[in-house]
Parts: sequence; C-alpha cells; structure tokens
Amino acid sequence: MRAYRVPAFLSAPEWQEVPEPTPGPGQVVVEVTAVGLCHSDIGMLEIPPTLAESLGWTAPFTLGHEIAGRISALGAGVHNLALGTAVILASSSCGNCWYCVRGHSNNCLYGNVNRGAGDDGGLAPYVLVKTPRDLLELGDLDPVAAAPLTDAGATAYHGVNRVRNLLEPGSTAVVFGAGGLGSFAVQLLRVLSPAKIIAFDPSLDKRSLAMELGAHLALPGVSAETVEEVRNHTGGRGADAVLDFVGTDATISAGVSSVRPGGAYGLVGAAGGTLTTPGGWYHLLPKDGEIFTYEGSSLADAQGVLALARSGLISSPVETFAFDDVEEAYRRLRAGTLRGRAVVTFD
Amino acid sequence: MRAYRVPAFLSAPEWQEVPEPTPGPGQVVVEVTAVGLCHSDIGMLEIPPTLAESLGWTAPFTLGHEIAGRISALGAGVHNLALGTAVILASSSCGNCWYCVRGHSNNCLYGNVNRGAGDDGGLAPYVLVKTPRDLLELGDLDPVAAAPLTDAGATAYHGVNRVRNLLEPGSTAVVFGAGGLGSFAVQLLRVLSPAKIIAFDPSLDKRSLAMELGAHLALPGVSAETVEEVRNHTGGRGADAVLDFVGTDATISAGVSSVRPGGAYGLVGAAGGTLTTPGGWYHLLPKDGEIFTYEGSSLADAQGVLALARSGLISSPVETFAFDDVEEAYRRLRAGTLRGRAVVTFD
Amino acid sequence: MRAYRVPAFLSAPEWQEVPEPTPGPGQVVVEVTAVGLCHSDIGMLEIPPTLAESLGWTAPFTLGHEIAGRISALGAGVHNLALGTAVILASSSCGNCWYCVRGHSNNCLYGNVNRGAGDDGGLAPYVLVKTPRDLLELGDLDPVAAAPLTDAGATAYHGVNRVRNLLEPGSTAVVFGAGGLGSFAVQLLRVLSPAKIIAFDPSLDKRSLAMELGAHLALPGVSAETVEEVRNHTGGRGADAVLDFVGTDATISAGVSSVRPGGAYGLVGAAGGTLTTPGGWYHLLPKDGEIFTYEGSSLADAQGVLALARSGLISSPVETFAFDDVEEAYRRLRAGTLRGRAVVTFD
Amino acid sequence: MRAYRVPAFLSAPEWQEVPEPTPGPGQVVVEVTAVGLCHSDIGMLEIPPTLAESLGWTAPFTLGHEIAGRISALGAGVHNLALGTAVILASSSCGNCWYCVRGHSNNCLYGNVNRGAGDDGGLAPYVLVKTPRDLLELGDLDPVAAAPLTDAGATAYHGVNRVRNLLEPGSTAVVFGAGGLGSFAVQLLRVLSPAKIIAFDPSLDKRSLAMELGAHLALPGVSAETVEEVRNHTGGRGADAVLDFVGTDATISAGVSSVRPGGAYGLVGAAGGTLTTPGGWYHLLPKDGEIFTYEGSSLADAQGVLALARSGLISSPVETFAFDDVEEAYRRLRAGTLRGRAVVTFD
Repeated sequence: MRAYRVPAFLSAPEWQEVPEPTPGPGQVVVEVTAVGLCHSDIGMLEIPPTLAESLGWTAPFTLGHEIAGRISALGAGVHNLALGTAVILASSSCGNCWYCVRGHSNNCLYGNVNRGAGDDGGLAPYVLVKTPRDLLELGDLDPVAAAPLTDAGATAYHGVNRVRNLLEPGSTAVVFGAGGLGSFAVQLLRVLSPAKIIAFDPSLDKRSLAMELGAHLALPGVSAETVEEVRNHTGGRGADAVLDFVGTDATISAGVSSVRPGGAYGLVGAAGGTLTTPGGWYHLLPKDGEIFTYEGSSLADAQGVLALARSGLISSPVETFAFDDVEEAYRRLRAGTLRGRAVVTFD
Repeated sequence: MRAYRVPAFLSAPEWQEVPEPTPGPGQVVVEVTAVGLCHSDIGMLEIPPTLAESLGWTAPFTLGHEIAGRISALGAGVHNLALGTAVILASSSCGNCWYCVRGHSNNCLYGNVNRGAGDDGGLAPYVLVKTPRDLLELGDLDPVAAAPLTDAGATAYHGVNRVRNLLEPGSTAVVFGAGGLGSFAVQLLRVLSPAKIIAFDPSLDKRSLAMELGAHLALPGVSAETVEEVRNHTGGRGADAVLDFVGTDATISAGVSSVRPGGAYGLVGAAGGTLTTPGGWYHLLPKDGEIFTYEGSSLADAQGVLALARSGLISSPVETFAFDDVEEAYRRLRAGTLRGRAVVTFD
Repeated sequence: MRAYRVPAFLSAPEWQEVPEPTPGPGQVVVEVTAVGLCHSDIGMLEIPPTLAESLGWTAPFTLGHEIAGRISALGAGVHNLALGTAVILASSSCGNCWYCVRGHSNNCLYGNVNRGAGDDGGLAPYVLVKTPRDLLELGDLDPVAAAPLTDAGATAYHGVNRVRNLLEPGSTAVVFGAGGLGSFAVQLLRVLSPAKIIAFDPSLDKRSLAMELGAHLALPGVSAETVEEVRNHTGGRGADAVLDFVGTDATISAGVSSVRPGGAYGLVGAAGGTLTTPGGWYHLLPKDGEIFTYEGSSLADAQGVLALARSGLISSPVETFAFDDVEEAYRRLRAGTLRGRAVVTFD
Repeated sequence: MRAYRVPAFLSAPEWQEVPEPTPGPGQVVVEVTAVGLCHSDIGMLEIPPTLAESLGWTAPFTLGHEIAGRISALGAGVHNLALGTAVILASSSCGNCWYCVRGHSNNCLYGNVNRGAGDDGGLAPYVLVKTPRDLLELGDLDPVAAAPLTDAGATAYHGVNRVRNLLEPGSTAVVFGAGGLGSFAVQLLRVLSPAKIIAFDPSLDKRSLAMELGAHLALPGVSAETVEEVRNHTGGRGADAVLDFVGTDATISAGVSSVRPGGAYGLVGAAGGTLTTPGGWYHLLPKDGEIFTYEGSSLADAQGVLALARSGLISSPVETFAFDDVEEAYRRLRAGTLRGRAVVTFD
C-alpha cells in the first residue's frame, strides 16, 4: 500500500510503498478513514537521530497520529472488539506500567513511541494497533471531525482538567494562543467551569473564533501590558489559571506573573521559551501556586473529549484534504492559513 | 519597655524604649516567654523602603516573629480566651478574606504585615496581637522548643503537606538543605509518609542531624552528579518530590531534573536562583509534574506541627540566649554555627 | 421595633415589640431589606426545648435567616466595612475554630446558633451581626433575588460542589426534588459540570421549572421503577451522583441503588427516611462510592453562589410579600403553592 | 493435577483431578508456591446459583485467590515477562474498561470473576492467568508472607488510603476488628499517617497483636459505650475516620456515631449489618462526612502494600499448612484459632 513516511531522521517525508499490516496476537488492524495533521509532525523532521533512538524510535515510519477508521482485522486473543466498528485511536499506552495502572497513561513508560511518532501511523490505507486499549468507539460521530479530538482535543482537555478545581464561581481563566489547541481549551473551559475566559491571540481571525467558541474577552497577543490587563479584568486579583499554548519567553513571563496566589500556570506550547527575567524564581513564580507542563493526553482525557463531542458540547472546526493532497495540507499548516485542523480523508 | 527594633528601613536594628501595648477592641496582649530568630529577620534589614511601603510595612518596628508567651490583657469583645493562658503565635491572618475563608491563610490579603515584619514583634517583654485567631494554646509544651514551630516548623509542614499525596509506598522524597527548615522537613516526611528520604547538605554535621531525624540517606551538597545520584537511588525513576530549602541556580536545576513525571519540585529557599540552562521550559520542567513556591504557612499548618510536637512525633533542637544577648544570637545565626534554632528567652 | 418571633420553644410564632439592637465591639447592625422564608423556620417550631438548649438556643428569638440589607451601625474595632453598604448575610461562623480555619465553616463549632435559629434573625427592621465575616457585599444585585442565595442557594451549592469532581464528560447527575433547593441544584449542575441532569419530582410544575433551568430530562417522582429508569438513561452504568432533596425511605433506597461504583449519593432533604431494606449495608451501598449528608453551607459556598448570580449564570425565582404579610407567606410555604422562594420585603 | 475445588454452587469443596492449564494468546501460567486462605472462600459456598451466574461465575472451579508462585509458561504475544520469575497475583482486572483506565481497577467491569472466585484459583499446582497485568514481581520477598498481601493486605490498604487525607496531625483513627484485615489496617495507619490509632476487638489476643503492630490503644469489642469512649479519647471531637472490619448492626451504629463532622466511616466487614436505629439518616450520619463500602482492591493498592513489605514497614503474620492439609487449615480458619493468615505451601 502507499504511505506518507519519514524515510530517515532529519529527512523530508516522502511517498513509499509498504506492505499492508497483519495483526499479531493481541493486535488489531484499522482501515483508515481520516487523519488530522499536527504541528508536531513537522517538528519530528528535526529530531536528531540520537534523541530519536533514545526515545526508542525507528525510521522509516509512516506519519499521522490523529486517526479515525474502522476495525478491519483482529489478532489472536482479541475479544470484545468487532470487525467493522468505527473507531478513533487515542495515544498509545501499555495499560500495565506504574503510570497506566494509576490512570496516568499520558506518562506511560512505553508511550514515547506512538503511531506516527517513531512507529507507523495513519497516513496510509491501514494502520496496525499494537495496544487495542487505544481504540475508542466512534458511534455516530463524523470521523473527520473526531480525528483531531484524539490529540489536539485531548491535550487541551488534559490542561483544562488539571486546573478545573481552581475554577470556582467568580474565577478567571486566561488562554494564550487561540489556535488548534487553544480553541479547544476555550470551549472546554466554558463547558467544565463557570470561569470568565480571556483569550489572547495576535490574529484577529483567531480572536473572533475564540469569541464564537465561548471566550468572554479576546485581546491581541501577549505584550508588556498583559499582566496589567489581566489584573484590571480580574478586579486586581490575577488569573486563577493561565493555559499557555504558545510558550515563548514573553508568554511564560506574562503568564507566570498574571496568576493569583494559589493559582496555576500551565505551559503547553513548545516554542522553547524560558523565564529570562532576573530576580530569582522564589519571588517571580506565583506564590503558593503551581507551574506545570505536559505532553499529550491520557486515555481518560481522550474519552472525556469524545464524550463532550457526542453530547454536542464542543465542536471541531476542520479543513479537509484528499490523501493525495497531504503535501498541500502540510504546506497550509506551515503557513498558518488553516481555520481549524487539517484533516486528510480516505475514500 | 525595652525592645530590639528596626529603626528605619535599610538600617541596623537597635535597642529602643517603647511604651507597653494596650489591647484595643478585639485585640490581645501577650507577655513574651521565648522568641525564635529567623534568617528572614536579617533579610528584612535589606528591604528597600519602596518595597516595604508597598507591602504596608512601617518603621520603626520590633523584630521577632516566632513567639511564645502568656496572655496578659484582653481587649473589649474578646471571648473564649483566658488571661494567663500559655500560647504560641502563628503567622498573622485576618480570617475573613477570600483566602482565609478557604483555609489558605498563608495567602491572606492582609498577611504581608506581620508581627516582627513591618509591625511590632516579640523581641520585647510584651507584644500586641491584633488578630487573636493567631493564638494557639501551648498546653504542656516547652515554650522554648515550641516557638520555632510557628514559622520554621509550620513552613516546612506546608511544603511536606503539599506533596504528601504523591508520597505513596515505594516513593522517594528529596530534601535539599538540612538546616532549620530542612531538618523539620525530614522529620515531617518520616511522620506523614512512607517515602524513602534522601537529604543533601554540604555540612557533615547537618547530614548527621538529618540521619538522626529520620533520613534514609544523606549526601553531600548538590552537584553536577545529583540528578544521576537520585536516579540511581530510585531505580531509575526519579524522585516523587523534591523540597528545596536552598534555592540557588544549582539546586533549582538539579531539583527540576530529578523529579519523575507527575512529581513535584517545591522551592522554599530564597537564595535567588533561577533556571539558567537554555533549551526551554517545555522540555526541562518535570513532565506533567508541578513546580511550586510559597512563603510562610497557614494557621492549619501551625496547628499541624504543634499537634505533632504534642504527640512527641517531632522534636525541635534549639540553642537558647538571654534577651540581653540578642545580638550575640544573631551573630551566631549569621555565622551558621548554630545547631538548630536560636531562641531568646525572657525570665 | 416590631419583630416576628418564636416566643418559646414548641410555641407558634407571634409579633412582639423589641428594642433596636446596638453593636458591641466587633459587631455590626444591618437594616433589613429582604428576608427569604425557609422550611426550616417551620421545623424550628417543633424542636423540643432540651434539644434546643443542647444546641445553645435561647427563646424568644426573631425568625428569618436568609437576610439582605444595608449596614446601619458599626461596633468598636470593626474596620474595612462602610455604613450603607448593601449586603447579604451568610450563615454565621466564628472564623477561628478548627473547622473554620480549614475552610469548613459549615461545621463551625459555634455554628449551631444562627440568626433566626436560636438567636435574633431578620424578620424585624434591624438585625445584629455578631460575626461580621458573614457579610457579603451585594453590589448591583437585587436584594430580593439575592436573599435566598444565602441559604437555599448556598446549601444546594455545597452539595453540587462536593460531587463536582465526579461529574466528568459523559456523566449523569440525578436530582430528587425540584423545589427550592433542588431547582438551584439543577442550575448549578448545569453551570459547574458537563453532566446530563435528570430531575425527579411528582409535581408537573416543578418538572417544567427544572427543564427551564437546565435539566435534560424530568421524570415523575421516585417510585419502584426509578433505579431501572436511571440505569436505562445511563447506558446501564448508573448515576455518577444523586442529590436527594427529599429524604424519604423511598428516595434514599432508590438513590443509593442508582449510583455507579465509585459514585456518590448525597442526602440533603430532612424528611426523616432511612434505608429499611434488609440485606446489610455492605451489599446495598454503592460499591467504593460515597454517601454523605450535611446541613447548611460554608462562607465560601455562599460566595460561590453569589458570584454565579452576579455573572448571570443562575437565577432565583421568588414571590414577594410585605413584612405585614409574613403569616400569609408562611401559609403559602406550608401549602406548597409557591413558585420559588417566598421573600418578605421591607420599605 | 490435583485441585481443591467447588464442585457446584451450594456444595462443599472437594479434591478433583483436572488437566494442567496451557496459556492462550496473551495469557500466562504460574506454578503455585503459596496460597492464603480467606473468609470469603467459605462465604462462596453459600452463594445461590442465580447470584453466581449473574456475576458470570461457573462451577466447578478451584478455590484460592491469594496466590504466590513462579511464571512457568507464556502465551503468544506476551512480552516483558520471563519464565521463572517469582510473582504474586493481584486481583484480576481487564486494564481497559472505564474504571481500569482511571486507575480504579477494583471496580473493573469484568472483575466479578476472579481466580478462586468463579474461575480456577491457586489451590492446585498450576494456575492460569488470563490478565497478566495482575502479576507483581516478588523479588526477594518470602512468598508465604507475601501471598496474603494480594487480598487481605491490599484490601486494608484501599480503606486506609481512602481516609489518609483526613488523618492530619492530632487526628484519631478507629479500627473495629483486629483480625486479618484489621491488623493490616493498624500497621498501615501507623505508616501512612500520624493519627492516634484505637483498635476495638473482643479478643485479648487480637488486642495485644494490635498493640504490637502499632495501635496506641486497644479496647474490648464494640458496645453501648463505644461512642462515649471514642469521644473521651479524642477530647470530645470524635474520630476522624472509622474503619469497620466487622460490619454488624452494633459496629455500624457505633461507627457512624463516632465520626466527627467531615470525617469518614468505612465499612469493610461483610457481617450483614445495617443502621437499625430509628430517626432518619439525615440526623444520624456524620454531618458533612462520608460513608463508604468497597470490595477488594486495585492493582495500585496491591503494589502499595507490596512496596511497604519490601521496605520492611509492614509484616504479615501467618501459619503455614501443607497442600494436603487444606481442609485442616479451613477448619482452623472457621474456628477463629489462627494467629494471622493461614497459608498453604507447595514444595
């Protein structure tokens, strides 16, 4: 079959012919219906081979980790799953390690390798699923809208869920960056909390999308005035939680300083920023608060965002592309001209 | 009466004659029995007047915020308190602000001013207590041992309590700095959790004190090998929690990198460090973990540490000094030659 | 001044002439604007004197504990409050006991006596506030709509807040009884969680009110089929949480059996029911779940519900009565013919 | 091979000859080393066939669910496990259902059937493990001491862990019944909390065992004075948590009434009791507290108790019996004359 693959680390992806996968014992094959494209796909092209190997990645591998499809083959010993079932694929996790056993499958000891990240992903007609616990039944949901829930949606959910208990009545949640993940975060904050939501984004389009999706206020991108603005819009108290989907020096500094005592600053955007202001962490970090970062999402996170989509409580704006047009889709992603997620469809 | 006071901001403390305090409505006066001396007393001498004023501090004021004594006068409207009761004084809090109402009195909106920190403290025969909720009954406990519980003990307790739920069987807690607060932390970790405790301190004396107080392992100060050592002593997993009572660039960097996914790094030491390594927070901070800082302690924290002392579960090593020898005590504190806390006694 | 009072335990309330209150040190007097009437006002008339005395109650006392008004006098030592400020009065709490210090002022050791419950309440032109921390600023809110928030609203909030963390996406919350408290609970569940809300009430009017306020389904009162209905509407799983504002044998039995493993059943209604089915608790109570009851609400609960009203996220349906018509209002309350809360107004 | 089995529901167990098990794909076979005997083994003999079938049980099946052994065969697709590894077997769970994904494998949707409970258990030379996630590496631990940890130890841990956050300094934990589970609970409370521990047991032997294992006070069994005794030993406040390993009418009533506001009563003993006192739950249950029951334990619970045994923090008193003497061991268990758990050994 034809697959869109990373041929070697530090190399541009290309089309390759590969054999169709067959399921071993305890494994499943899924016929792919739709695949969301992610910024991290582009980032993978720059990972040095030594880092890749330390993560357990092997090249070549097929790209694409936001996958919807239909079960097309079951390996020996797989029960409770039926051929033809429409599914989406949450991030891969083993189910048995110290983290998985406690429900923290986002930190799975074997989770560094995932479909489309060091192992074969969904930009091909069929994909092998080595850990069938990742399969979530799609039901009536549109696979095109649902595919991005598995990563963009679930990752935003993980962050919102971590701060949910801080978001009492009268609280304020700040979102930096109203793109793919940030626009999910705005929706999730609206559904899971009574907080006032302030979104910051330099793009007028994304600010108006944020307002449509439930933000109470959308302000131009983070600047020297941000801390003051947050303070003014919270009666002087500061934000109860800031979720930063950008992650530059500027957003980190503004985010950390905008949080009230006991509040939280969550860094999700991987722009490589740090806290450069001198003076020491002790006086700069939010007093008695919390700073956190994370990557990806747990199986429960993916179930959560899927349940919300099923109830009609969140939507998933996408632009679709044919499988043959994958490269055009990635060009648009790189250019930042997409409204919502790019999703590749197979028919 | 004679008091040891900060005469003006940025000035050295001195002996002054001041009138004995009288309690207004809702206030109490305490005759002082013992006062613990704190590194922050020395730090106060360097606070710029603008910062001091922004905190609501006024000078001159009497030093000393770890106070034990006896109730000697009650203002109008004070009920449920009896003259002569032996007490210690927790950090000042209003009881009514948004934070106090939720039990977070360490973040009290009016808590920046405290006895011995911008207002008159305990290095005098009598001290005025404007918020009698700060009074905790001492009972049979020795006031000399108990005075340091109100700040050094309670602050260490606050940090240990924040990470307690991470400290399951099989976990590891790391303590950087086994001095005043760190040695309390070692004891508290032992009493409140089943964690293996690793203490780091450059001083051989403090390492042996840490071992006496319950540490399972005491290693020389933080170095380039610290992360590797923690990893080796935790079967490769990393620490579940690191409490850093030092707070230099080196301890922050080692601490943040020693934490397992989902773990916590708490910064309590105010040495002014920050995270200077390049590369961006996103990949450096503990994955899905938590970084926190805080100052002081809540009323419940002080009650907690007092209850442990009453049960004999923690001890409080001190060296005592007469009121007249306050300056000698501060000299010893500055020189780092004390074993445990310096406590000034009145008789 | 004229007050509507309980003259003695086990006696019918009556109009009495009493002196206007004057504030002692640390106290405040409020001129009353509006008072919500509560079923518990009626229950108080049946409390035996021995029980009343064991709670610390004294008779006679003025009824009325859901009070809105304006600060009209300040006692010595009261700062940070201004004459004329519009306020509502949360349940009385000391601020200093073991429970208050931890934010659980609903369990205040001195909270058994409250305004309108063993001490003078708001059915009089002026009311004395001995613990000014109970005062919450009303701001622009209508005092008539806000008065019932202090008890009916805040008590419902306490229950919803206790189960909030169980209410993930895809969850179901069941409310038994859609009257005063239950109709607040429906609104609060809608605002604080993504749960599907099923309300049970025998009254068609209350079911349609529940649907207006956000329930997804409203079913006739609890019966032998209730457990089966809940199971059917939750895909066989059972409810994640049941809040029971009725409290008969029938609702307790149905509620306890409707909860999924790990879920919660909260009993708020004081109808005096118990679990009469034989067979033993071990197999009847929800497996690994939680059963709880409570009375009243904390200061933070009252702040929470007030913040939601201020944001327009909840409404408070009331019928108003003049002070002279108090007895007519209680008659309507007893007859169950009110739509929403009865509120007595003063002008 | 020879196995000790339940031949049919409601029938006495007997010796039967059965084939040695072979592992299917994803399965493992364990050669049995030691098996703890449990009161629930005896209870199984009285389960009506309709109930058994509704749980998914089939008869005949081999008894014995507290199993230690050595991996002797691996099915297709099983990786990360090695032949010969010494293991203990935690309660069976699927790893993939809604509960397992959230870390609550004690509520696994497929957990009603377990080895030795509706499916073949460990009272035979070999046992089939259908869900290899249940396998925990034993390391250096004695299999005889470790076998009872998988159920008696882990179940006690689950209860203690549920109340751990209530057990602050100065708190009191009450344990009803100091037998198999209760004696583990005493040890676990000592290791995981600073609470004062009061154990109640009618047997002088068990009371002295409780004192050896860490109780601060051991009192004769629950009586009409129990509530008063608890109140006296807690300065009038009541217990912060009661864990009831008995479960009669008397212990439930005393337990529920001994809990302070906001505390917890956990029912673990299956003696079939209920709350018979009239008056209604609303006033009888602990105010704003929590009542819970549960069965069994999660995989994380089993890991927890195993980690504590490995650190030497808990011990596991046992009496051993040869495989041929199983019936004698059950006789002693029924007679209540064992000190600690009965463990059957194979050599």
